[in-house]
Formats: sequence, C-alpha cells, structure tokens
Amino acid sequence: MTNSSRFLEYQNRINEALDCAIPETDVLYSKIFTAMRYSLNAGGKRIRPVLVLEFSRIFGVDESVAMPFAVALEMIHTYSLIHDDLPCMDDDDLRRGRPTNHKMFGEATAVLAGDALLNRAFEHVLSNSNSISADVTLRAMKCLAKASGADGMIGGQMIDMQSENRELSLSETELLQSLKTGAIIEAAAIMGCILGNADEEKSAASLEYAKKVGLAFQIKDDILNVEGDSKLLGKDVGNDEESGKSTFVKLLGLDGCKERLEQLTEEAVVAAKKLPESEFLVWLAYELLSRKN
Amino acid sequence: MTNSSRFLEYQNRINEALDCAIPETDVLYSKIFTAMRYSLNAGGKRIRPVLVLEFSRIFGVDESVAMPFAVALEMIHTYSLIHDDLPCMDDDDLRRGRPTNHKMFGEATAVLAGDALLNRAFEHVLSNSNSISADVTLRAMKCLAKASGADGMIGGQMIDMQSENRELSLSETELLQSLKTGAIIEAAAIMGCILGNADEEKSAASLEYAKKVGLAFQIKDDILNVEGDSKLLGKDVGNDEESGKSTFVKLLGLDGCKERLEQLTEEAVVAAKKLPESEFLVWLAYELLSRKN
Repeated sequence: MTNSSRFLEYQNRINEALDCAIPETDVLYSKIFTAMRYSLNAGGKRIRPVLVLEFSRIFGVDESVAMPFAVALEMIHTYSLIHDDLPCMDDDDLRRGRPTNHKMFGEATAVLAGDALLNRAFEHVLSNSNSISADVTLRAMKCLAKASGADGMIGGQMIDMQSENRELSLSETELLQSLKTGAIIEAAAIMGCILGNADEEKSAASLEYAKKVGLAFQIKDDILNVEGDSKLLGKDVGNDEESGKSTFVKLLGLDGCKERLEQLTEEAVVAAKKLPESEFLVWLAYELLSRKN
Repeated sequence: MTNSSRFLEYQNRINEALDCAIPETDVLYSKIFTAMRYSLNAGGKRIRPVLVLEFSRIFGVDESVAMPFAVALEMIHTYSLIHDDLPCMDDDDLRRGRPTNHKMFGEATAVLAGDALLNRAFEHVLSNSNSISADVTLRAMKCLAKASGADGMIGGQMIDMQSENRELSLSETELLQSLKTGAIIEAAAIMGCILGNADEEKSAASLEYAKKVGLAFQIKDDILNVEGDSKLLGKDVGNDEESGKSTFVKLLGLDGCKERLEQLTEEAVVAAKKLPESEFLVWLAYELLSRKN
C-alpha cells in the first residue's frame, strides 16, 4: 500500500468513526448535535487523529483500541476551531469552505457546541476503552487533558488573543505555537506511545518528531496565510496581517520561514527514522511541507 | 457537630481545595488562570461538591478520595455559569455580587476561562486519583462526563436558549431543569455511590434524593427570581420575566411552586431516610427549601 493511500484510508476510517460518535437524534435539544456534527464532519486533513493511529500502529496497538483516542483528539481540535472563530476571538466567517459554526447556528449554539465537543471527547474515551486496562486509559487521558488545557492549547490561544495588542518576540511566538498547535500534535504521538507501551528511547523519538512537525505545521500555516489560495484553503487569507497578530512570517520573513520549515522537516525525518516502520511518518513530514491547504 | 457547622466545614475545605487546584503563576498566559480563579473562588453555596463529600462519607469513602471529584464538579458548575453569563447567552453583568467574568476580563478570556475550567475538571481528577482503583476512577469520571455533556447540562442550556423564542410546556420545562441543573446534582450523589461501592438499593435512594432536591432547587431559584432580594442573591432579579423564558413560576404560579417545593422536599427527606446517617441530607433539604439566596 502506498503512503498516500494509507493516509486516505486513515482519513476515511476516522471520518466514519467521527460520524458514528455523535448520532443524529430527535430530542428537544437536537440542535446541539446538529451543530456539533456540522463542524466535526466538515472534513479537514485529520492530521492529529492520523498521527494517533499511526503511532499506535508502529507500537503494535490495534486500531480499534486507538480510534477512541483519535476521535477524542479531533473533537478537541474541532471545538477549539469553533471557539477560535467566534466574534469575540478571531471573528471568522469561513472555515473549511463553509460558514463558521456561529454563522450557521448563532453564537450561543456555537459556544455550547464547542463546550459539548470538548466534554464529549472525554466521554467518548470513557465509553469506548473497555478493551484496554483502566490504568492505560487514565494515563492516555491525562496526556490528552494536559495538552488541551490551560497549560496547553487554551494557554496558547490566550497568548494569541493578547498578542493582538502587542507584538510578540520570536521565543514568545514559539511558546504560543508550541502550546496552541504543538501540544495537541505531541499528545497524538505520546498517546500512541502510552497505548503501545513504547520504551523511553522510542517515546523520546516520537515526541521529537511531533515537536518538529508541529512547529513546521504552524510555520507552513503562516506562509499559506500570506501566499496561499483562499479557495484551496477554504478560509480567508491575509487576515493575520490585518489582525496585527505576531506570525513567523513577520518575525523571520517569508524566505526565513521557508528555510526553517525545510530544516524542521529534515529534523522530523531524522527523529522518525529512529522508529520502526517509519516510512509513513517520513512521507507525512514531506507531505505537510508541500501542502497547499 | 451540628449540621450547619458540618456544612460550613465542608464549604471551607472545598474552598481551600479549589484555591489550591489552580495556583497563581507568572507564565505569559497567566491571565487565563486569574480569570479561572476569579470565578472559581467567588464563593457560592458549594452545594454540588458538598453533596459529593456527604454521599461519599455516608458510604465510607475518605474525604481525600472524594475531594478531587467534588472539586471537578464545582469547576464544571463554575464554567457553565461563566458561559451562561456571556452576552450571547443570558448577558448577565452580575454574578455572586461581583461583575461577571466577561465584564471583568473581556469576552474572549471568559470563553477560554470556561473552556479551561471544563478541561481542568477532568485533568484534576486524572492527576489526583492515585489512591483509588483506576476502574473506579473511570466509572466516576464517566458519570461526571455524561452529566455535564450534551445529554446533560449542556443539552439543558440548549433548551434554555431555544425557550427564549417559544414557550415551553411543563414537561419540557421539567426536562430542561432535569438536564441543566438536575444532571450535575444527580452526578454528585452517584459519584459518592460509585466511590463507596454502594449497593443497588442505596444507590437508588441516593439518586431519588438528588432528583427531588435538584428539582426543588430549580423551583426555589425561580421563586427567588420573582420574590428574592437582589442584594442577598448577588444577581439581578426579575430577569426571567423580561427574557421571556419559561419558568416554573409562569407555569405553576407562585403558590403552585411553593406547594410543589414543599412536596419535593418531603419526598427528598423520605429518600434520604433510606440511607445510613442521613441527618445531614435531611437538614440540607430543608435548608435549601428555606434559603434566601
């Protein structure tokens, strides 16, 4: 199987699992599920859950065991997008080529749909982890909760909001990124290690790969916000500049960004090669480097 | 020890545990912790965590084991208040006698502080449950997550938001309440039962008590919104009427509400008396009946 068809198959199985995770219902409050499903099933690259499944596979974990954690991670990623798009945050109208959640369902519902997706992430793991030991489930969940919390993704978003009022230094921008985007990507790798009981050395290499790929991912995002095609991206471009936010492009310049991006990708590849069956991870690092959306 | 001094001691220990659960820090994103602490340490009756501790005590669970779950429940309750107060929801300026979170820190921070408190609730349990079996922790967390999710508290808030546009029937209002307020109060009792490995009969009596007290609590809230003293309540009164929301007062009338409230309190007392050492639960039911805030 080629790497790109493996990627596609991962994405398909993840989309299917996400679709099943929140069924349509006809309860009085069914609008909340419609709003949750709208954003969760909007597509996207599914990088984070793909990494959970791939690291799990590398360490010999059955996909059925890893999937609930992959689903939970994507739910958390999705809720963060819904809340980040709110008028009081980035005030975005378009996400993945469609109206943002609050444009579609109203602000109150969008806040609640985000809340419910975060909550559901934990609920989903708690309801679907019967086949592994409770202890391993708890450790993987702890990793997930730390990554998505105030000392992870939410802390990063907090810095991001504050940065609209003052320029950040490079190290502050790197901290922002490592929290806002990095923490969740790292959690994908670490959860795979926990589920597969990886040894210290392989866990370190996994984390290293995730750190490099995570930072590369954000730098690429900043580049695409300047050079990208809004049709391919499914969202507005150029709004980083408008919002006055600190970005890697402003700090390093476009050329500096591209150089750093290539360097990080090579470092990710070096880390990946310390792991067994790393072909897909290597391919994915290059794929993310050259992506158009 | 009198029941009221037991209540006070519970509240003090809960406040102390909440204060320790989120320390002050000097990280770049410290504003998120300041905002979380602002609402979490704003006082309040702490009914939900008190119920966790009391049901745990009744079933022989050490308070140190029950406290992380009590703290988590109060974090979830607090986050829901922050989000419910947002301009796009109830648009409240005052909560517990102080400016609401978004009035104090801005809307973006209030959304994130709420998110972070929900996330922290799970993180807190995951980091502080080493002294009990992983399996029991998972079962108690599952109960918590279900109660706070889309089929619990959030679903209730969804109905509440929708009810601003159309009048609800009595049974719809009861569903709203059982989800929005009831689910979390029931979870307090059930978590105590899970932690203490209570038998089926005692678990059923515990749930029955929580159901009756939970509904009584909401009816009392609706009565206080009409007859209460905004100074004692620390929030505006009369706004239920203005917002066009369905309340028990509109559906049953003030006298009907008071009658129903007394009846529910008596039923709660009957349920409590099926449990060992139920004096405090009985006292609490009457206390909630006569409360002024």
